Amino acid sequence: MANPGQAPGSAEYLGEPKDSNIHIDLIAYTADSVKALDDVTALEASRASAEPGISWVDVDGIHDADMVKRIGQRFQIHPLSVEDVLNPEGRPKAEYYPNYIYVVLRMVTRDPNDDELDSEQVSLFLGKDFVLTFQEHDGDVFGPVRKRLRDPNTRLRQQGTDFLAYSILDAVVDSYFGVLEDLESQVDALDVLEATELPVDTPVRLHKIKRQLRRLRQALRPLREAVAALARSPDEWIKPATLPYLRDLSDNLAEEVETIDLLRETCQSLLDLYNAGQTQRTNDEMRVLTVIATIFIPLTFITGLYGMNFDNMPELHNQYGYPIALGLMVLTSAGLLGYFRYKRWL
Amino acid sequence: MANPGQAPGSAEYLGEPKDSNIHIDLIAYTADSVKALDDVTALEASRASAEPGISWVDVDGIHDADMVKRIGQRFQIHPLSVEDVLNPEGRPKAEYYPNYIYVVLRMVTRDPNDDELDSEQVSLFLGKDFVLTFQEHDGDVFGPVRKRLRDPNTRLRQQGTDFLAYSILDAVVDSYFGVLEDLESQVDALDVLEATELPVDTPVRLHKIKRQLRRLRQALRPLREAVAALARSPDEWIKPATLPYLRDLSDNLAEEVETIDLLRETCQSLLDLYNAGQTQRTNDEMRVLTVIATIFIPLTFITGLYGMNFDNMPELHNQYGYPIALGLMVLTSAGLLGYFRYKRWL
Amino acid sequence: MANPGQAPGSAEYLGEPKDSNIHIDLIAYTADSVKALDDVTALEASRASAEPGISWVDVDGIHDADMVKRIGQRFQIHPLSVEDVLNPEGRPKAEYYPNYIYVVLRMVTRDPNDDELDSEQVSLFLGKDFVLTFQEHDGDVFGPVRKRLRDPNTRLRQQGTDFLAYSILDAVVDSYFGVLEDLESQVDALDVLEATELPVDTPVRLHKIKRQLRRLRQALRPLREAVAALARSPDEWIKPATLPYLRDLSDNLAEEVETIDLLRETCQSLLDLYNAGQTQRTNDEMRVLTVIATIFIPLTFITGLYGMNFDNMPELHNQYGYPIALGLMVLTSAGLLGYFRYKRWL
Amino acid sequence: MANPGQAPGSAEYLGEPKDSNIHIDLIAYTADSVKALDDVTALEASRASAEPGISWVDVDGIHDADMVKRIGQRFQIHPLSVEDVLNPEGRPKAEYYPNYIYVVLRMVTRDPNDDELDSEQVSLFLGKDFVLTFQEHDGDVFGPVRKRLRDPNTRLRQQGTDFLAYSILDAVVDSYFGVLEDLESQVDALDVLEATELPVDTPVRLHKIKRQLRRLRQALRPLREAVAALARSPDEWIKPATLPYLRDLSDNLAEEVETIDLLRETCQSLLDLYNAGQTQRTNDEMRVLTVIATIFIPLTFITGLYGMNFDNMPELHNQYGYPIALGLMVLTSAGLLGYFRYKRWL
Amino acid sequence: MANPGQAPGSAEYLGEPKDSNIHIDLIAYTADSVKALDDVTALEASRASAEPGISWVDVDGIHDADMVKRIGQRFQIHPLSVEDVLNPEGRPKAEYYPNYIYVVLRMVTRDPNDDELDSEQVSLFLGKDFVLTFQEHDGDVFGPVRKRLRDPNTRLRQQGTDFLAYSILDAVVDSYFGVLEDLESQVDALDVLEATELPVDTPVRLHKIKRQLRRLRQALRPLREAVAALARSPDEWIKPATLPYLRDLSDNLAEEVETIDLLRETCQSLLDLYNAGQTQRTNDEMRVLTVIATIFIPLTFITGLYGMNFDNMPELHNQYGYPIALGLMVLTSAGLLGYFRYKRWL
Repeated sequence: MANPGQAPGSAEYLGEPKDSNIHIDLIAYTADSVKALDDVTALEASRASAEPGISWVDVDGIHDADMVKRIGQRFQIHPLSVEDVLNPEGRPKAEYYPNYIYVVLRMVTRDPNDDELDSEQVSLFLGKDFVLTFQEHDGDVFGPVRKRLRDPNTRLRQQGTDFLAYSILDAVVDSYFGVLEDLESQVDALDVLEATELPVDTPVRLHKIKRQLRRLRQALRPLREAVAALARSPDEWIKPATLPYLRDLSDNLAEEVETIDLLRETCQSLLDLYNAGQTQRTNDEMRVLTVIATIFIPLTFITGLYGMNFDNMPELHNQYGYPIALGLMVLTSAGLLGYFRYKRWL
Repeated sequence: MANPGQAPGSAEYLGEPKDSNIHIDLIAYTADSVKALDDVTALEASRASAEPGISWVDVDGIHDADMVKRIGQRFQIHPLSVEDVLNPEGRPKAEYYPNYIYVVLRMVTRDPNDDELDSEQVSLFLGKDFVLTFQEHDGDVFGPVRKRLRDPNTRLRQQGTDFLAYSILDAVVDSYFGVLEDLESQVDALDVLEATELPVDTPVRLHKIKRQLRRLRQALRPLREAVAALARSPDEWIKPATLPYLRDLSDNLAEEVETIDLLRETCQSLLDLYNAGQTQRTNDEMRVLTVIATIFIPLTFITGLYGMNFDNMPELHNQYGYPIALGLMVLTSAGLLGYFRYKRWL
Repeated sequence: MANPGQAPGSAEYLGEPKDSNIHIDLIAYTADSVKALDDVTALEASRASAEPGISWVDVDGIHDADMVKRIGQRFQIHPLSVEDVLNPEGRPKAEYYPNYIYVVLRMVTRDPNDDELDSEQVSLFLGKDFVLTFQEHDGDVFGPVRKRLRDPNTRLRQQGTDFLAYSILDAVVDSYFGVLEDLESQVDALDVLEATELPVDTPVRLHKIKRQLRRLRQALRPLREAVAALARSPDEWIKPATLPYLRDLSDNLAEEVETIDLLRETCQSLLDLYNAGQTQRTNDEMRVLTVIATIFIPLTFITGLYGMNFDNMPELHNQYGYPIALGLMVLTSAGLLGYFRYKRWL
Repeated sequence: MANPGQAPGSAEYLGEPKDSNIHIDLIAYTADSVKALDDVTALEASRASAEPGISWVDVDGIHDADMVKRIGQRFQIHPLSVEDVLNPEGRPKAEYYPNYIYVVLRMVTRDPNDDELDSEQVSLFLGKDFVLTFQEHDGDVFGPVRKRLRDPNTRLRQQGTDFLAYSILDAVVDSYFGVLEDLESQVDALDVLEATELPVDTPVRLHKIKRQLRRLRQALRPLREAVAALARSPDEWIKPATLPYLRDLSDNLAEEVETIDLLRETCQSLLDLYNAGQTQRTNDEMRVLTVIATIFIPLTFITGLYGMNFDNMPELHNQYGYPIALGLMVLTSAGLLGYFRYKRWL
Repeated sequence: MANPGQAPGSAEYLGEPKDSNIHIDLIAYTADSVKALDDVTALEASRASAEPGISWVDVDGIHDADMVKRIGQRFQIHPLSVEDVLNPEGRPKAEYYPNYIYVVLRMVTRDPNDDELDSEQVSLFLGKDFVLTFQEHDGDVFGPVRKRLRDPNTRLRQQGTDFLAYSILDAVVDSYFGVLEDLESQVDALDVLEATELPVDTPVRLHKIKRQLRRLRQALRPLREAVAALARSPDEWIKPATLPYLRDLSDNLAEEVETIDLLRETCQSLLDLYNAGQTQRTNDEMRVLTVIATIFIPLTFITGLYGMNFDNMPELHNQYGYPIALGLMVLTSAGLLGYFRYKRWL
């Protein structure tokens, strides 16, 4: 996030510092040919965009602000957009600039170690003959897009930059499904249990799931609005033929947001159920204590009564005193048991 | 759901694999004649649409992606729509394409064995002279529609494809009523009970009902929007005379969504009531323990006191010691009982 | 509700069957004359509408579908509207048809026996020279409207069918006020009590009140939208002079919906208060048990200690053993009481 | 509220009957002169409006329906507006009529005796050369407006009826601030306390505050909409120069509604805090009982064991029996204390 | 807040009185030159605005109403705006006046001593050649803006008053990030703990955090609307080139509001988790008491039984009476332990 009062558009990297170099990949293609270059320099990247055909420049790493700024200048990116690229905590959005459309979105993956979501900002610039993407780290979900680019028979190769941008967005949106399915299966694992079978760590698990759902929702809802805005009408950079694809993407996002809301409600319902189960269990335990204590308390009093050492206690010297006392105890407990049964506590 | 990065429009079946064959039914009719063919091939199905009159091609099973794609091509369905047909987890929607309207909806039935909802996606294509429907499994709620098609005097036979599509949608929407009535009667069975009569599995039952209501709502709300959109204005494929019918359908859906919301609120209110009843019951039990324990604890102390074995305890040797001790106990318990009554705990 | 797949517009009665005959009343009036006919036939009813002046045909009973259909045909009612008339569970709405406006609403009364709401569907058709109403049962809240129709000096007699329709709607909306006031007084009866004075059946009472509020809200909210739509602009059937009256009606409905929401919030707040009162009461009781038990438990231990029968217990044979033991007990209980007071539990 | 079926516009007083007379004040002014008449008759009031300049007719009391109707007729008020004036439970609103704007609002004061809100309906009619206000009782918050009217240098004297109406609305809206500040200070008095310091009547206090906030909100929210509607565009009766003042008023109302919402959330948060404090307190008490009981129960068992009277109990006759028993007790309690400390219950 | 009935536009200071003088700073600049004057008089301030170039007049302190009014008159500020400046509790907003745009916003800082938010109203007037700001106290977050003004190469010096106003707004909005991050880290400190590790003051901490979040939200939400309104379209005072900057600001505010909502939900989820942890802990403790009490209660009864002093108790004189009694106790406790284990309470 920005330092208070800092010059806007001053384009400083706002995430955690990193050591590694920024890595730039370039794929330049026409319907007939494709050329993929790994680890190019910023200069080469910008030149590529001067060639006929379409260039996809993918920058992995945004921690070198100077490099990002230089790339931005070569593609004539507005300083405010550059500043947004450098802030890894930005909000998903789509913005129209005179010479490009700028889309901010988040790529979400699950960290298998600690059961948490990792998310990474992706900045996508869609221009006349280039698509420029920035990611925070190496490693992404664009492999299948790259693979299809190499195949001359795919629709992707026949279409313009708008279809490439759509394909990239689609890959990111698809990646949410996996994360959501994983969370869904976690919720379902709890949902099939009976109330009293819910494990003791149910509240913690639900708390963690709800946290991830909140984060996903915060990434998806503004993205849905952004994609719906892109899908609304054709545009200098988006051809009519691409609109159904974008609408489909927007539908997918709507469905994902609804699934998140459904899961959130299910979590809340499960928490209610767990609490009801806990209360019932505690009540069952307390009922046993109550019944045992309530039955034995008067009995123990009777034993105490005839355990007193007064000289003058005629009952003690009566031959039938003991059996009578025992009988009294049996009657007392029978009476209490009957009362409990009448009250349906047993 | 899609594999991340997969080519959009690549039309792969995304549900659980099945062995059985896809089954295609065809009903071709004009106002004067009707011809019903069972289990036709895709080729026959597409040819039917070339005849004069209206064809309803109903495909049961979407697990054979190639077959679905072939049918799609014959009816000139956009690849994105074919992809949607093949994804049985899609969101209800209505989409306008140049040569058809595409409606996705869900058909809901109750599984009588396990008290759960089964739902199945239905894809409906409304074209100039054909209606094409895809279902996941054999068995549907369209029997009465088929029966009416055979009767030359029904409005259905006199009208165009739009009325057939409406009749199919109407049959699906009507099927929700039965499911809802069943859930309503489950809720009502609890709602007529007193707070303390609510069975111990009330939270579980409500949890299950709420789950089904959530699922129904997720199917109905977007469908309502879709039908309301269809009902808004006439169109190349929807004649003005059909609009009141679609508005009526949209009203029915609105009513169903409101009934769901009402049932959800009733469930929440019942859960509150159950919890209040449980708390009251526990409190009543604890009150008995409290009263009995509180009365006997001092009495037992007194018996313990005079059960001590000190040599020098004058009370023990007093002739009236025992009756005085008994009197002390009576007074103590009377005092405590009076206090409890004053505090209204008895 | 409809049977799945049934032909739309097939107009079957969907409520509970009844034996009694359908009863038709007719009031035909001009500014100068009025003619009221009780229990006319459908034929007479429809002829009345051919006379100069305005006819109000009021049909009590919708369980005879044929009769309703015949009446519908004579007034040229669309089959879908007839179907809606025959479904007593319809949603309040206003619909424009070429030759009439159709309003569905609910008339609510309180059943004095079982503290529940009875509600009955009213269908109102507003045409050029007729108002046609359908009710489920005999007995309604229209008496004052009929009375005013007989008085030639009322605005009602001077105005057209729109004002008659408004007067009927107004009578229904006014009837809600009585029901709401009754519920309000039930809530207020609880609201004036202190937290601990709330009766033990508070949750049940609130549950019942909330159920009735939910039902009322479900009837009122769509009706408000419908009336607001009627009040928006003049129309072939609604004259500008009637619009302020409809706006006023819409205001009344808005106020009623707000009162319902206020009462619902009050119910929720009362339930919170009751729960707090119950918790406090339980805590007070447990505190007494805790204090008494905690004080006597060590004392009873001491008595047990000196009630043991070991041969070699020097304290027992000490002359001051008993008073020392008593002193120890006094000190122990004083110490515990001091601790409790320090902790503010007493 | 209206009697069901009563003629609309029949203008009956719907509040509680009162004995006192209706009291009419009149202030007639131009930029140069001012004339204030106390307790005029309806006739005088209406004549005043015929003079050049502006008349403010303020009617205290609406329980004499005939008088109100007569005044209404003299100022050519629509019968529906008169009916609204006579219903003291109306909803705040602004309505445009051909010859006046009618504003309904509520004046709120705190009853210092019983800590409740008193509210009173104010009806304001803004015409070409008159402002007509109706209040339920004597006594209002308009003193400062009257005072400023007497001062020829105030903007109020220079402007038209719209500014007078604005000044009256502003005085009412300002009066809410005092009530809100009072409620705010009540909430703040609780908000500065620690969770366990919250007094035992916190739920009741919050319940009362929430009730007043609900009532205020019900009066303010529709008023805000009404004032925002007035501020939207100039009009025959509202000059452009007055619009900023009305917008400012609308802003103040928006702020008040937001403050109410903030206070409601604070109340809810305080209730959660109180409940948490109560639970913690109960748990602390129960923990002491648990620890003491759990430690002494086995000890008391041991004393009971050696208090048994069997002939053949060798331990009793052992010389070290008593010290060994005491040692056993010390060990038992030490073990239990250690366990509790390990479990962090101490 | 205003005194009821006070003249609108009468411009009285409505905050707490203060002694110190009002302090006025002036920075006048063109692209080529800059002149900064500290502690100027109102007269000098207004003259500055007559010079060529742009003047930023920053007034620290609004408690001297006369001074504020005088400054207002010199810059031709509408009396209503002056009144708003003098009310330190105003609602954030943007208003268009013929000769300036008026923005009210709040500057938020954290008081390091008492963990509370301090907030201060800032009033900003954007005119043709001046920006006029009012703050309540000395000390602000504008240092970096002033610093950049001194540097001739910054965009700020090249642009007009709209960019200066934007820079000031941006500095305020940036200052929220710090506050939010601090609150976020407080929430996160709780969020990483296990349910049973949450400290006992968790409810209080969450209550405090929620209070601050509510206050922030109340400051940010209307500001967001205001900035979004400014960013919507160019204007006499706002050039098209500045719009992307304002949109960016509006995005930042949207993100902050979303972060607040996320934190609020996290707080609620944490409170649920804490409550679940407390309940579990209490239940665990009660279970130990239950088990120990339930096992020893019957044992103690047996000891009491054989501690009775009846003459005729054959068991006492049996040689194996004592071991048999001990065996009975062992069996009883083993039976109860087995029952508990079967019930899974151990």
